[in-house]
Amino acid sequence: MSIQQINSFVAEEWLAPAEGARPISSAITGAVMAEAGNDALDTTAMLAHARAHGGPALRAMTFHQRAKMLKALALYLGERKQALYDISFDTGATQSDHLIDIDGGIGTLFVFASKGRRELPDAHIYLDGGLEQLGREGRFLGQHVCTSLQGVAVHINAFNFPVWGMLEKLAPSFLAGVPAIVKPATSTCYVTELAVRMMLESGILPEGALQFVAGGLGDMLDHLGAQDVVAFTGSADTALKLRGHPNLLSNSVRFAAEQDSLNASILGPDVTPEAPEFDLFVKEITREMTAKAGQKCTAIRRIIAPQGLVQPVIEAVSARLATTRIGDPRDPATRMGALVSTAQRDDVLAKAALIGSEAERVFGDPDDLPMSGQGGFVSPLLFHCADPDAARRVHDTEAFGPVSTVMGYRDPDHAVTLANRGGGSLVTSLITRDGDVARQVVLGAGAWHGRIYINNADSMKESTGHGSPMPHMVHGGPGRAGGGEELGGIRGVMHYMQRTAVQGSPDILTAIGGRWVPGAREIKGPAHPFTRRYGELSIGETLHTGAREISLDDIEHFAQFTGDTFYAHMDEDAAARNPFFPGRVAHGYLLLSFAAGLFVEPNEGPVLANTGLDNLRFMKPVQAGDSIRVRLSVKAKTPRSAEYGEVRWHVTLFNQADETVAEYELLTMNAF
Amino acid sequence: MSIQQINSFVAEEWLAPAEGARPISSAITGAVMAEAGNDALDTTAMLAHARAHGGPALRAMTFHQRAKMLKALALYLGERKQALYDISFDTGATQSDHLIDIDGGIGTLFVFASKGRRELPDAHIYLDGGLEQLGREGRFLGQHVCTSLQGVAVHINAFNFPVWGMLEKLAPSFLAGVPAIVKPATSTCYVTELAVRMMLESGILPEGALQFVAGGLGDMLDHLGAQDVVAFTGSADTALKLRGHPNLLSNSVRFAAEQDSLNASILGPDVTPEAPEFDLFVKEITREMTAKAGQKCTAIRRIIAPQGLVQPVIEAVSARLATTRIGDPRDPATRMGALVSTAQRDDVLAKAALIGSEAERVFGDPDDLPMSGQGGFVSPLLFHCADPDAARRVHDTEAFGPVSTVMGYRDPDHAVTLANRGGGSLVTSLITRDGDVARQVVLGAGAWHGRIYINNADSMKESTGHGSPMPHMVHGGPGRAGGGEELGGIRGVMHYMQRTAVQGSPDILTAIGGRWVPGAREIKGPAHPFTRRYGELSIGETLHTGAREISLDDIEHFAQFTGDTFYAHMDEDAAARNPFFPGRVAHGYLLLSFAAGLFVEPNEGPVLANTGLDNLRFMKPVQAGDSIRVRLSVKAKTPRSAEYGEVRWHVTLFNQADETVAEYELLTMNAF
Repeated sequence: MSIQQINSFVAEEWLAPAEGARPISSAITGAVMAEAGNDALDTTAMLAHARAHGGPALRAMTFHQRAKMLKALALYLGERKQALYDISFDTGATQSDHLIDIDGGIGTLFVFASKGRRELPDAHIYLDGGLEQLGREGRFLGQHVCTSLQGVAVHINAFNFPVWGMLEKLAPSFLAGVPAIVKPATSTCYVTELAVRMMLESGILPEGALQFVAGGLGDMLDHLGAQDVVAFTGSADTALKLRGHPNLLSNSVRFAAEQDSLNASILGPDVTPEAPEFDLFVKEITREMTAKAGQKCTAIRRIIAPQGLVQPVIEAVSARLATTRIGDPRDPATRMGALVSTAQRDDVLAKAALIGSEAERVFGDPDDLPMSGQGGFVSPLLFHCADPDAARRVHDTEAFGPVSTVMGYRDPDHAVTLANRGGGSLVTSLITRDGDVARQVVLGAGAWHGRIYINNADSMKESTGHGSPMPHMVHGGPGRAGGGEELGGIRGVMHYMQRTAVQGSPDILTAIGGRWVPGAREIKGPAHPFTRRYGELSIGETLHTGAREISLDDIEHFAQFTGDTFYAHMDEDAAARNPFFPGRVAHGYLLLSFAAGLFVEPNEGPVLANTGLDNLRFMKPVQAGDSIRVRLSVKAKTPRSAEYGEVRWHVTLFNQADETVAEYELLTMNAF
Repeated sequence: MSIQQINSFVAEEWLAPAEGARPISSAITGAVMAEAGNDALDTTAMLAHARAHGGPALRAMTFHQRAKMLKALALYLGERKQALYDISFDTGATQSDHLIDIDGGIGTLFVFASKGRRELPDAHIYLDGGLEQLGREGRFLGQHVCTSLQGVAVHINAFNFPVWGMLEKLAPSFLAGVPAIVKPATSTCYVTELAVRMMLESGILPEGALQFVAGGLGDMLDHLGAQDVVAFTGSADTALKLRGHPNLLSNSVRFAAEQDSLNASILGPDVTPEAPEFDLFVKEITREMTAKAGQKCTAIRRIIAPQGLVQPVIEAVSARLATTRIGDPRDPATRMGALVSTAQRDDVLAKAALIGSEAERVFGDPDDLPMSGQGGFVSPLLFHCADPDAARRVHDTEAFGPVSTVMGYRDPDHAVTLANRGGGSLVTSLITRDGDVARQVVLGAGAWHGRIYINNADSMKESTGHGSPMPHMVHGGPGRAGGGEELGGIRGVMHYMQRTAVQGSPDILTAIGGRWVPGAREIKGPAHPFTRRYGELSIGETLHTGAREISLDDIEHFAQFTGDTFYAHMDEDAAARNPFFPGRVAHGYLLLSFAAGLFVEPNEGPVLANTGLDNLRFMKPVQAGDSIRVRLSVKAKTPRSAEYGEVRWHVTLFNQADETVAEYELLTMNAF
């Protein structure tokens, strides 16, 4: 069998392994199949290339352009995923494991592509939160903005997800406008290398956006600065070494770690062995123990069940594990493949022995290795810890394989205490139908866990699995889980951007944010804004309408026509007793409707539809005899399709004394 | 003169200085006036006390209760501020410096009190962002929640703001529900001690919420864990030592540093010496150089002006500095007091000498010490660096006193490059009227600066000052500034809470968040919800109305009555040409108005007013002949005064085929 050379991609050149290369073995056979690594890696050239080319090219793109780039990458990889499946079996993974890694990674790109277009502006600056008025008259305000970091994202990934692990970090980095250097774990880097080759060959990425290190990172961390980010996934030991790196510390280099942790699953006190939730609990456990042969940073290591149900849980989980077929991952009948290497298998067995010093083994035999002991095959091992309060190792020893420990709890507070004994985890799950129990667990355990996954018969058909980080939700956790955060939709993008508090006048903030700020200059357009196409409208373009007087007849007629005869509109005495009104007042919807009558241009034109309205506040009552007029200003614009875009209008209603009576944001779709 | 004993407050006991105590000198005379420190400090007792008493007591309070506590503290301290002024002169600070420290600190408490009640729920869990639908039918969703950390906040503060420095960290900690141990810099800890005594004597805080260390922290950091936070303000050297502390690293203890940095102020290329902005620039600079004798982590260390204006800037700044009266801070005529100590003075002069190796001194004389060289008095020093591209020390040497360096730039990109040479700062200011310049500076420099303060003639009357961190805006910065963040309104509270991604069914998420999630169980109330008082309404209480058919007459009448004759409502052919509509459709405001007619209970009752509406989206057009009905559910409740609270209603409009045609959130005020 020939030894495959796994290359690095350095400043647009592929670099073969050389001095310092390390062998890579098949998880199935244990035989050496590839090698990777090169001591001569020029890390300063890589960083300089990313900073000089990849960063500026990505930053020149808008969020929407970057989102479209992610979608194109996802489609390109999706068409080639069979080749990625084919090469992945040697990592020990089965076809259903490939779906998690490869399809899961591509799906993550799609979600970020979609969120980038829906939730970010078609611009370079993201506005974080609302305006803060810092002076009495609104002439000086604050706005938090996020801009792209001007450095490089160094992604150090774990061996278990060679594709997802890369893509879940690349998607937010690229959307943020930051180039990346990807360094996967060496043992499965051949899969990552193929995915990198595909992305580079696609021509979708700008030069310098993506570089790749097969093997060790050399002295790269010595050359990082305040604009760079290190995002790490892997063991607590490696994370500690990286976190304490002198250069990262002295330059305040951003470092985020997502560490394997002692995740737990709690069976609620309300669940009986006959309930569908009991079966659900058992299925989630066995799936987490056997998927990727338990090599998931989110896998369930501790099974926390009511004391009275410990025995039924052990029996049910054992019964399911007994039917799990272990074998060659290429065989479609196989349900659990191999650990990534014989070394990993030995480590798992050693850790299981430590757990065994505090807990009784109730399923599996560490000495009875499947497949005659070749490669990384191992049997699932289930333990029972009878005294989890006194035990320590079951809460802090992670066997990164199909190993888990059952422990009993007395009441929900005790279950929370046991879950928190892990010292911080990526995810704890809870199987319950009882909302009070769910609330109690979130209040007691929330601070210790990055994710709390709650499931029951209502949600089980749509639930996404204890162990699956979703791109929409943050992934990470405090303490033992590393204290970091990834994903979480746009939150994940912000890890690669700098938040800056900007202070200035309305005109200055409008110029920076591309969003009209009340008090900023109003632009008089050449015609009614409803006659102007999306591309013609300027931010700040403003229409002032004439005034309309509101009569008592109007109020009475509106009440009768709509059926809204609320006392504040109909009964002078009752309205006057109300703390908000001087007497009968006009309906809020009457004001909105009359306002539309004042500003709408009726003829067919580029305004296609009123699609919504945000942040309406009624600020001053309007009574019969008052009049209203409208100021309508273009606040923001966002493309929504190839034919039209959304215009957000800032609408202010004034009364005859020029006091603001209502303010809101109106949404229309306008043709390009 | 007697030596004042500055005590620590340890587990509800005041502890006098003992072995290990250090002397504290007056900044004015240099004479020893107090001592602080005790080697026998029992740090584990302090942490245990906070964890066992302060944390649980604070966590049992809602956000609103904690906010009221902050307001009470602010009022209590405000009534006693004269005593704090009186004791603060010996730090070298003038009366106007006291306003920054003492009134600024109290003002920060007020802002957090106000934001806590306006922007947080009256509950224990904060919902971060919106719902994420994770399954097709909405039976499994995600919601990020934040819960209080269950540990202790250790606040290590700088000497320059003994009151503000404490309160700006305490306000967000307490609002988050986290107890604090305050350790100010020893040299001015006697002021902090007095403020701590006041707060403790007030009886406003629960036991264990606040402890105080005068002197060194001992081995406290060795005992922190995953639920604790260290928030540090001070020098880069000390921050580096803390950041690399082995226990903080191995337990992923949250650590945030706010370090003195090489802040800059840029004069825009549009400003002429005759413009009001030129004068504004000079005033901001001299104020930042002389307030607190330049001992502000945000002070302007680098003055970046167009090359052609370097000489006029030097002359104008020098002229103002020459009129700055330096002397006894107790003298009301004094404009600049003393540095905190003779040691600090010597350090500033040594740093100024380093800067002098690259820049020419153009104002002030380090050898001509005011007040005959007693205490910490020093003259302001202004330098001019002729080659700021080649220079290094002017960009990385911080003389923490009234010292600044003028440098010229060629064009805005060059100004940005120079500002960024500081390697990351807390704040850069820009004086300009030109929105394009402002945008260019934010895009180029945003990633390097925690705050960008932009000022001109429009905003100068209301502007809050280059050097003043506002509680509303984040304070911190990347790289040299420490990579941390404080304040920023509710963002600052989140530094003391854990974000957790919660996944579950609508019922489960409703139970956890106290906010009704669409798809969750609807509760049928005993009467129309508009007849029920605030306290009687349950989350999820739901009214289903009857249906109302919309006729063409309704649409035509509404158009005529309101004046809204938009073509989509009036012209069948034009509407059909529109990509959104099958033909003429009802007005959105007609639907809202009819909906109100369907759900409003007209008689005088506990509903006081409709105050607003959020997140309205029209999802399906309604045509003549269609009918609509309404589902009205109590989504959330928030107290707003002693008499009434805000009810947020989830409103869904369905058509005759039970399709959703519109959805929004309605706000009413309801009597208690």
